[in-house]
Amino acid sequence: MINFDFVSPTKIYFGKGREDELVGIVKQYGFKRLLFVYGGGSIKKIGLYDKLVKNLESAGIFFAELSGIRPNPSSEKVDEGVKICRNENIDLILAVGGGSVIDTAKAIACGFYYDGDPFDFNLHKVKPTKALPLGVILTLSASGSELSDSCVIMNDKTLVKQGFNDDIVRPLFAIMNPELTYSVSKYQTGCGVVDIISHSFERYFSKSENNDVADSLALAIIKETVRAGKLCIDNPMDYDARADMMLLGSYSHNGLTSLGKAKAMPIHKMEHALSAYDVNIAHGAGLSVLIPAWMEVSYKNDISKFSRFAKEVFNIECNNEDECAKLGIQSLRNYFHEIGMPISLGEINLSKNDIPHLVDMMTDDGTHVIGPTSIKPLTKEEIIRMLNSIL
Amino acid sequence: MINFDFVSPTKIYFGKGREDELVGIVKQYGFKRLLFVYGGGSIKKIGLYDKLVKNLESAGIFFAELSGIRPNPSSEKVDEGVKICRNENIDLILAVGGGSVIDTAKAIACGFYYDGDPFDFNLHKVKPTKALPLGVILTLSASGSELSDSCVIMNDKTLVKQGFNDDIVRPLFAIMNPELTYSVSKYQTGCGVVDIISHSFERYFSKSENNDVADSLALAIIKETVRAGKLCIDNPMDYDARADMMLLGSYSHNGLTSLGKAKAMPIHKMEHALSAYDVNIAHGAGLSVLIPAWMEVSYKNDISKFSRFAKEVFNIECNNEDECAKLGIQSLRNYFHEIGMPISLGEINLSKNDIPHLVDMMTDDGTHVIGPTSIKPLTKEEIIRMLNSIL
Repeated sequence: MINFDFVSPTKIYFGKGREDELVGIVKQYGFKRLLFVYGGGSIKKIGLYDKLVKNLESAGIFFAELSGIRPNPSSEKVDEGVKICRNENIDLILAVGGGSVIDTAKAIACGFYYDGDPFDFNLHKVKPTKALPLGVILTLSASGSELSDSCVIMNDKTLVKQGFNDDIVRPLFAIMNPELTYSVSKYQTGCGVVDIISHSFERYFSKSENNDVADSLALAIIKETVRAGKLCIDNPMDYDARADMMLLGSYSHNGLTSLGKAKAMPIHKMEHALSAYDVNIAHGAGLSVLIPAWMEVSYKNDISKFSRFAKEVFNIECNNEDECAKLGIQSLRNYFHEIGMPISLGEINLSKNDIPHLVDMMTDDGTHVIGPTSIKPLTKEEIIRMLNSIL
Repeated sequence: MINFDFVSPTKIYFGKGREDELVGIVKQYGFKRLLFVYGGGSIKKIGLYDKLVKNLESAGIFFAELSGIRPNPSSEKVDEGVKICRNENIDLILAVGGGSVIDTAKAIACGFYYDGDPFDFNLHKVKPTKALPLGVILTLSASGSELSDSCVIMNDKTLVKQGFNDDIVRPLFAIMNPELTYSVSKYQTGCGVVDIISHSFERYFSKSENNDVADSLALAIIKETVRAGKLCIDNPMDYDARADMMLLGSYSHNGLTSLGKAKAMPIHKMEHALSAYDVNIAHGAGLSVLIPAWMEVSYKNDISKFSRFAKEVFNIECNNEDECAKLGIQSLRNYFHEIGMPISLGEINLSKNDIPHLVDMMTDDGTHVIGPTSIKPLTKEEIIRMLNSIL
């Protein structure tokens, strides 16, 4: 086990109706001027927007609004949010939504105290040193951004989608009512399931030396996500399944499942290129196509780990580790297909012709391997072969 | 899943040599005057005391000392600590040790801001509203107090040993170097193993309705503790096993394994009576005697849960759930015996004659059942039968 620092300080208010407590929570911390960040129509459609506005107005709490945050959130919205915060003396950013909304709020929180372009944080040109406090009302179980140190933004001018990680962006509090996810479509729910699995999956398959605790927690989270994810898709108003998914989303990406390990996220890195290349590709859909393909090209580098994954997540019984590993890959691919997720490039409207450009984006024009610290670093040529195998 | 609030804000500095960073950490927070709380000779024997004193003195950081904290820590030491903090204008309490030292520090931290008797918190007469910040250097993997909201103190005058739970006592930071536990004896290590198992065990066996996530995490932690615990006892200087135990201790009792569940701790309640009755009984030793006995009398109230425990923790294969549950109980009892822990009252020097007094202490003179919200509330008569079965 390697040395590490870890903190996950977010206070969770979990359960039915908890969003009604927003005013009390905001007052308890003493905040007076909010920036209310949200996406499109979904929080209006479920009545959440009206309820929050009414409660904040009744309590006389000032708030400015920043809306229209899209998936693969844009750096332009970050710049706009920073301006509002400065003009309106905002003291709390309230993100109401899923990962894109929360990540936009995180970038604004850091950008507020920085004179340069906030995308510098994402380009790793500079580390944030201070951030406005951030509260979340979660409406989508997927990114885990409500507890995580991660902030992924897309620069529309350069088409670069990139994340940075810093404890400074971990939210102060998160209100999580699973009922707020009842209206999430089957497809979006499926994307969330894949994303949640991927966060512990990439940690589990990062190079480890004697990390049994982190690995066991990762497998427990993946197994539960496989179970609860299917239930959410079969019955979108299954409260307990939605609650499980919400918890799993948070704990799959807050760092718990990689304590004491070096973390490599090669599949995330490749997927960011996919959804930057075509913003219509949902992050979870891109991951769903890439994960089994990555497994096929990587499993021989750590067969016992793949075999353990197959046994613990899919209860696979087999004659030898190689067979077990292969059955595990097939089971995961089948599961993604079963919950309505794509497992080929064709299903996300990509073809052979797109591969050269995609691979250039993934590898920075062939100058970088993917996952230099992962169990199987991939060269440009290997990625081309991999993508051609899932046309 | 029931509604819940949860926060575990402690910043962890984990790994080899991390105690050398104490001065930097203290300075980074801006603390100037410490109360250094510790137990007996063990931190002196391993050279930790001298190292810390030298580093603090070199940095010109003031510290007062409170030493001689014993297992089943006494309320008198709490009172003494509160006085020192007030006289010396202490701004950080530094607990260097295991659960008793940390719990004493927690009680002092709250007592500092309270005019009455700090034991009032433990008697649940009053809730703490403010506490001095608390830092920990952990030297024993057992109580999980380094992350938990729990504080157990013994009142020497009344012989009442009781705990309270409040987020306000969760430490600000915890420095965890597994090497500092190399010198912990096999017996003390075993006591820690049982205590760590018990924290997730009692959560797992608390009444649940659809708490698959918490239950899966609990079983993962128990299974890993069974594995790593044995390795620590077989080879006390196995770094990775000691590191696993330290992580497991922290996450078995910070609340992660009971998220969304009502929590009942009936075995802890009974054990507190045992070690209050005879302070020579280590908490883990008392638990080791009581846990399998509690299982025997309770398993019929939730056979499938006991069966799942047996299968996942001990890989038991069997013909029916009843058989599986029974084999699980036997396996845990055998495991405790194998790691040198007592499994009968005789082994902790208690006999039939002690039972009436013990049971009166456990049930407040027969006025309370044990575990009213657990899967099997126990009356005075049932506890008498249970204790007679493990003479």
